[in-house]
Amino acid sequence: MAEEEKPQTMLYWGSGSPQCWRLQIALLEKKQDNVPQKLVSFNKGEHKSPQVLALNARGQVPAFILEGVSINDSVAACFYLESQFKYQGTQLIPDEPAKQAMVYQKTFEALFMYQKMEDYLFYDWRIPKLEQRNTAQERNIMSLREELKLWEMYLEKMTRHKYLTGRIFTLADVVMFTNIAFCFRFGLKPKKFPNLFDYYNRLKERSSIEASWPPHWKENPPTMDKMKYI
Amino acid sequence: MAEEEKPQTMLYWGSGSPQCWRLQIALLEKKQDNVPQKLVSFNKGEHKSPQVLALNARGQVPAFILEGVSINDSVAACFYLESQFKYQGTQLIPDEPAKQAMVYQKTFEALFMYQKMEDYLFYDWRIPKLEQRNTAQERNIMSLREELKLWEMYLEKMTRHKYLTGRIFTLADVVMFTNIAFCFRFGLKPKKFPNLFDYYNRLKERSSIEASWPPHWKENPPTMDKMKYI
Repeated sequence: MAEEEKPQTMLYWGSGSPQCWRLQIALLEKKQDNVPQKLVSFNKGEHKSPQVLALNARGQVPAFILEGVSINDSVAACFYLESQFKYQGTQLIPDEPAKQAMVYQKTFEALFMYQKMEDYLFYDWRIPKLEQRNTAQERNIMSLREELKLWEMYLEKMTRHKYLTGRIFTLADVVMFTNIAFCFRFGLKPKKFPNLFDYYNRLKERSSIEASWPPHWKENPPTMDKMKYI
Repeated sequence: MAEEEKPQTMLYWGSGSPQCWRLQIALLEKKQDNVPQKLVSFNKGEHKSPQVLALNARGQVPAFILEGVSINDSVAACFYLESQFKYQGTQLIPDEPAKQAMVYQKTFEALFMYQKMEDYLFYDWRIPKLEQRNTAQERNIMSLREELKLWEMYLEKMTRHKYLTGRIFTLADVVMFTNIAFCFRFGLKPKKFPNLFDYYNRLKERSSIEASWPPHWKENPPTMDKMKYI
């Protein structure tokens, strides 16, 4: 990574990170195709490179700067893009109050769901071997299963619609789709969560999603299948 | 709680919940003083009452409905209030791009900080006795300490300013102040985090904050002092 130290517009991203993917989808939806994007290798520790650290003190991707304004949190960046380019590309936050409220609500609930997925999937990496307990993972499974059942129910109420909150694609879909794709990539059983699977299939060929699909997901088989226990 | 089943405008809240407090501050900042608020007792399990469940399927507070539009996540609700009443009371999200980006960024980082605080403070309640390990709490302490040091540094850069992101009070302050108040309520040492303590003192008498201060915090001593170990 021998780039100039701090470019004015740049997205550093990692393949398979739902946070990066969210932002990449939002960039495409808001017609910001011209933002240069640099893929960093987690294996090589490039998310801790000086270039990334110059933008993101936490040494994480996404590390994002747009015309000199840096904003790294993926959902914060999506809000920012929507606000700056409100009338460009897809309107990700509707104006009508009830619809708008639902988009805000489901966006934050999707973050909550993601947290439960991480607690379960990343347990073995985060918790030292000596501390690991099956009972803890059983609790994580129960909690994630309950959460996904709630989303099954949400989607059940929306079956006449294509998207999470109705007839239009919104910020809630940006966040939730990347979660759901993560679930199925890592083994979630379609038969147990048919509404989630239908939703996944309805959205996976949307152009912003297909164009930003994690490249190593296309090329390599999944590294785990833990979601099959949910 | 023998109220009508589903009022058109209502906030159900619990005393000492940072999530509820955020929303109460935002309501006051946006001049929504007329929203009826009902205090529920966690001890009596009133957050699982039919009235709350009718609004919030998760059985949590805040449970919030505004003119028939229900939105429960505290930060989602703050975004909604800001959008619906943009020109009423305090503008919580600035228009100028760099300032706006900073407010979005710090709002989401404050949620991240809150998560680390919860992981540590609520460990004994969430993790069954048999699974509890000192090493896990030591890790939680380290992680929260690093996080708070980062905020000390953020505030160090802003010492000329009163608020988290500059000269005006924003959504980032709504979220972060309630976190910081939680820290000091539960024993964080002012000498270790002087910038956080100054920030706390600068904001604690702001009228929206003082008026919504958790009532049982005024009346009772803290139930724990665990933050002194950070």
